[in-house]
Amino acid sequence: MHPLIQHIQKITGNRETDGQKILSYFEARMYKKKDLLLEEDKPCNAYFFVVKGCLRLFFIDSNGMEQTMQLALENWWMTDLDAFRTGRRSTYTIQALENAEVLVLSAKNYALLPEEIPLMEKYFRLMYERAFAASLSRVRMISRMPKNEIFELFESRYPEFIQRIPQKVLASFLGFTPEYLSELRKKRIEHKPL
Amino acid sequence: MHPLIQHIQKITGNRETDGQKILSYFEARMYKKKDLLLEEDKPCNAYFFVVKGCLRLFFIDSNGMEQTMQLALENWWMTDLDAFRTGRRSTYTIQALENAEVLVLSAKNYALLPEEIPLMEKYFRLMYERAFAASLSRVRMISRMPKNEIFELFESRYPEFIQRIPQKVLASFLGFTPEYLSELRKKRIEHKPL
Repeated sequence: MHPLIQHIQKITGNRETDGQKILSYFEARMYKKKDLLLEEDKPCNAYFFVVKGCLRLFFIDSNGMEQTMQLALENWWMTDLDAFRTGRRSTYTIQALENAEVLVLSAKNYALLPEEIPLMEKYFRLMYERAFAASLSRVRMISRMPKNEIFELFESRYPEFIQRIPQKVLASFLGFTPEYLSELRKKRIEHKPL
Repeated sequence: MHPLIQHIQKITGNRETDGQKILSYFEARMYKKKDLLLEEDKPCNAYFFVVKGCLRLFFIDSNGMEQTMQLALENWWMTDLDAFRTGRRSTYTIQALENAEVLVLSAKNYALLPEEIPLMEKYFRLMYERAFAASLSRVRMISRMPKNEIFELFESRYPEFIQRIPQKVLASFLGFTPEYLSELRKKRIEHKPL
């Protein structure tokens, strides 16, 4: 069964999904590591579901530094949601951090899909409900927690990210300098029980 | 027409709503200014829709300070979403900042409502989609923008908050000290063209 259909069944608890019909709204695409899926200041007409690989969403700040705001592994969705929803130009770039296989849902099909397959309305509602709750936890974390605690919490919740994401990108995502992240990781290795 | 039904019609674009049926899932409640709607470390069984008034969601940090994380005016929803979704105890307190009239949706009715009235599935999907997009903008704002720009952006997007929310609460929400917020506001008044 396709990973998207598995994910829909898992999230909605519904086992009677017409997988072929749902998949017909999507286009499969392959990207090489470092390829751009979306560019800043361009229209954003695609919602990406990660089948395999890893994506990041970033913008270039006024000092010319890349600021990574989101990461997506398998079964995660990614787009510049504000631009995708409103038709405005994107304020972010999306890049593949590894060779990636994705499904692309166009804005047109995103409007059609929940109307034509009501289960997808439920799927997206539950997905956004989770994503919104996670985003609120993130706001609390980055605005109210000491940096070393942020890293500990992140490490316990998302161990896969720590393994797969390049140090520099991970540091930017957490709002650290790469040097600070490297210090933190060194300290944690030294303090690990044998 | 009840404000909730107006809001559902506005968000979904659907004018054929059975208002009475939808409202039958909710309980109306009144709170006085400073009343608590939800307390930290208690079960969270209620989702609040603000009909009139203003709510805030906060926690007490390790220094005993109240940290306001969310604000809700008319037509906004508020709960400890993580606790409400998972059945875990709340990590927040919700308090009325003004006398408030709210509709309460229990966890049980929140599970029933979208199943029994499919339009509500669409309504919640669109509401979370917006809320998630706004939360992502907030993460970018608080983690990557200078404080004076945060205030300017917030002021332009949410002028009502500036008028209605007490200084101390507003400062906490923005991650400022009350003194810093007061300085910022003074400077802006001095620089306003006559």
